[in-house]
Amino acid sequence: MAQDTILLAHGSGGTLMRRLIDEVFVTGFGDAGSPALDDAATLEIPDGRIAMSTDTYTVSPLFFPGGDIGRLAVCGTVNDVATSGARPLYLSVGFVLEEGLPIADLKRILVSMHESANEAGVRIVTGDTKVVERGHGDGVYVNTAGIGTLAPGVSLSGSHCKPGDVVLLSGTLGDHGIAVVSIREGLEFSTDLRSDAAPLNHLTAAVLQAAPDVRCFRDPTRGGLASTLNELAGASGVSITVEETAVPVRSQVLGACEMLGYDFYQVANEGKMVAVVPADQADAALEAMRSAPYGEDAAAIGSVAESPAGSVYVRTSFGATRIMDMLVGEQLPRIC
Amino acid sequence: MAQDTILLAHGSGGTLMRRLIDEVFVTGFGDAGSPALDDAATLEIPDGRIAMSTDTYTVSPLFFPGGDIGRLAVCGTVNDVATSGARPLYLSVGFVLEEGLPIADLKRILVSMHESANEAGVRIVTGDTKVVERGHGDGVYVNTAGIGTLAPGVSLSGSHCKPGDVVLLSGTLGDHGIAVVSIREGLEFSTDLRSDAAPLNHLTAAVLQAAPDVRCFRDPTRGGLASTLNELAGASGVSITVEETAVPVRSQVLGACEMLGYDFYQVANEGKMVAVVPADQADAALEAMRSAPYGEDAAAIGSVAESPAGSVYVRTSFGATRIMDMLVGEQLPRIC
Repeated sequence: MAQDTILLAHGSGGTLMRRLIDEVFVTGFGDAGSPALDDAATLEIPDGRIAMSTDTYTVSPLFFPGGDIGRLAVCGTVNDVATSGARPLYLSVGFVLEEGLPIADLKRILVSMHESANEAGVRIVTGDTKVVERGHGDGVYVNTAGIGTLAPGVSLSGSHCKPGDVVLLSGTLGDHGIAVVSIREGLEFSTDLRSDAAPLNHLTAAVLQAAPDVRCFRDPTRGGLASTLNELAGASGVSITVEETAVPVRSQVLGACEMLGYDFYQVANEGKMVAVVPADQADAALEAMRSAPYGEDAAAIGSVAESPAGSVYVRTSFGATRIMDMLVGEQLPRIC
Repeated sequence: MAQDTILLAHGSGGTLMRRLIDEVFVTGFGDAGSPALDDAATLEIPDGRIAMSTDTYTVSPLFFPGGDIGRLAVCGTVNDVATSGARPLYLSVGFVLEEGLPIADLKRILVSMHESANEAGVRIVTGDTKVVERGHGDGVYVNTAGIGTLAPGVSLSGSHCKPGDVVLLSGTLGDHGIAVVSIREGLEFSTDLRSDAAPLNHLTAAVLQAAPDVRCFRDPTRGGLASTLNELAGASGVSITVEETAVPVRSQVLGACEMLGYDFYQVANEGKMVAVVPADQADAALEAMRSAPYGEDAAAIGSVAESPAGSVYVRTSFGATRIMDMLVGEQLPRIC
């Protein structure tokens, strides 16, 4: 189109908006996800029970090593739907564009969403775009909502963890948070560290097949593993202890956390899954995780005990035990 | 809670965010829609075919005569789902909050969403909140995505309009757009004009029952009736002619449009529905519309002809005919 930046009129419901939809969105999304031009998409659901989730993505900057806001928006919601044990099928997408956004940036984000949706095997079926005045946004905010189907009998919840269960983690901690903050702050250590943003629905499906009694999945995003485990311990009324020596984490992440004063247990991940499984299915679940995409570094990192209810501990390499606290206050704003 | 404005840390995934969810969101939404604390909601779907839609709401100001961004966010997506002929059941909600937002404003919005959801008979089942720095948002942006079930055989589309069909409109044009712009601009004429924001799913259900061959529903929001009818004419390859004398519109709206240089056909509505119905079901459909909530002023306003395909005309009270243009450029930014 003639304009190469977003104008307020692109959000007006008029002809410029129609051209944006026709020329940018439909082209950018390609076959896998042309949002229907009717106001709602009509979808086939092969099963009577579904899971639904939503997230809005405000990450800054929009593009970072290993991903961008588009990949994040597809993978994040796919992963949230997958945590329920569902098979993600459909996404909606809602954009808030800031006046002045280069249309080339929007196209790049749409292509990334398209590719990530293809990889996850989901379709983007409906969408909406609003434009706000310069200075009232930050380039692009993206909301995605996702739905998926639940097989009969699948009922996972963060409140289902039981004493004796094993805690699995699908790979290294902190890659996303440190990759984003490093480019944001212009830090040098970041050169070879990339965000882990990835769709994990194939991984959760493999684990669920190998360990049908899996208690729950959680993706440790904002607030990191610490928030995830504290939420699970609270919801289930159990105690969780993590063996620090078993936790996969890259040396660059450790170094960056030391430099910046972060606790890597509290740093956001966008391509990692926690699974809590009964002990007798832990080996099968871990093997399935390691064989699945993005699960090669998976490890059994901890275990569930009865008390003290709601508490999470880390046992260090020296054998000492400390509390794994939830994040208090703000560590990394706009990380996802 | 101790803080009375939103802090960046409310979006961190940590303890402050947990308190915001527990103390503000769960309280504000009440029984009808406590977002589940798991990452995805699990939902019963009584039928194998669903409709899905999404919209992000960036209206400015957040509160206006007759509604607020919360009512808009619930009703707008309920109405989009209803346009497919579906029965809306579930909504997700994603907030982008600007640092410094008074928590009292957020609570007021949540209560409004709760009330609107109750009125529509839908449940808010899952949600997400992000916080952006002061100056990178505008108080609150809200995304909602909605899903509903489609009865067997229901298949509506903007491409289904046929020559001879009748165009129905559920009530007066332009109330929302003029109510919002009047408070924004501090204009005096606005004193008794209110936004029409309302859930229309009960109305569409009544029309669908009375006129089972209804071609399509559309809610004429951004871009107004002009955009809606031009889209339908284009999608169906037909011509539509509106009888201006039949179109319900309030004198205050007419006066404001004259003063501001607006075309009331292009002004946004948030509680109006267009239905295109076969002529032999038009009387039944109109009667059903008039008996339904928010349909008392419904009228048959036009008809569909074969050619020229893609064109929309208005026949004025003087018998002259002019083209009803789609909005070009921007008329009312941030109207929804």
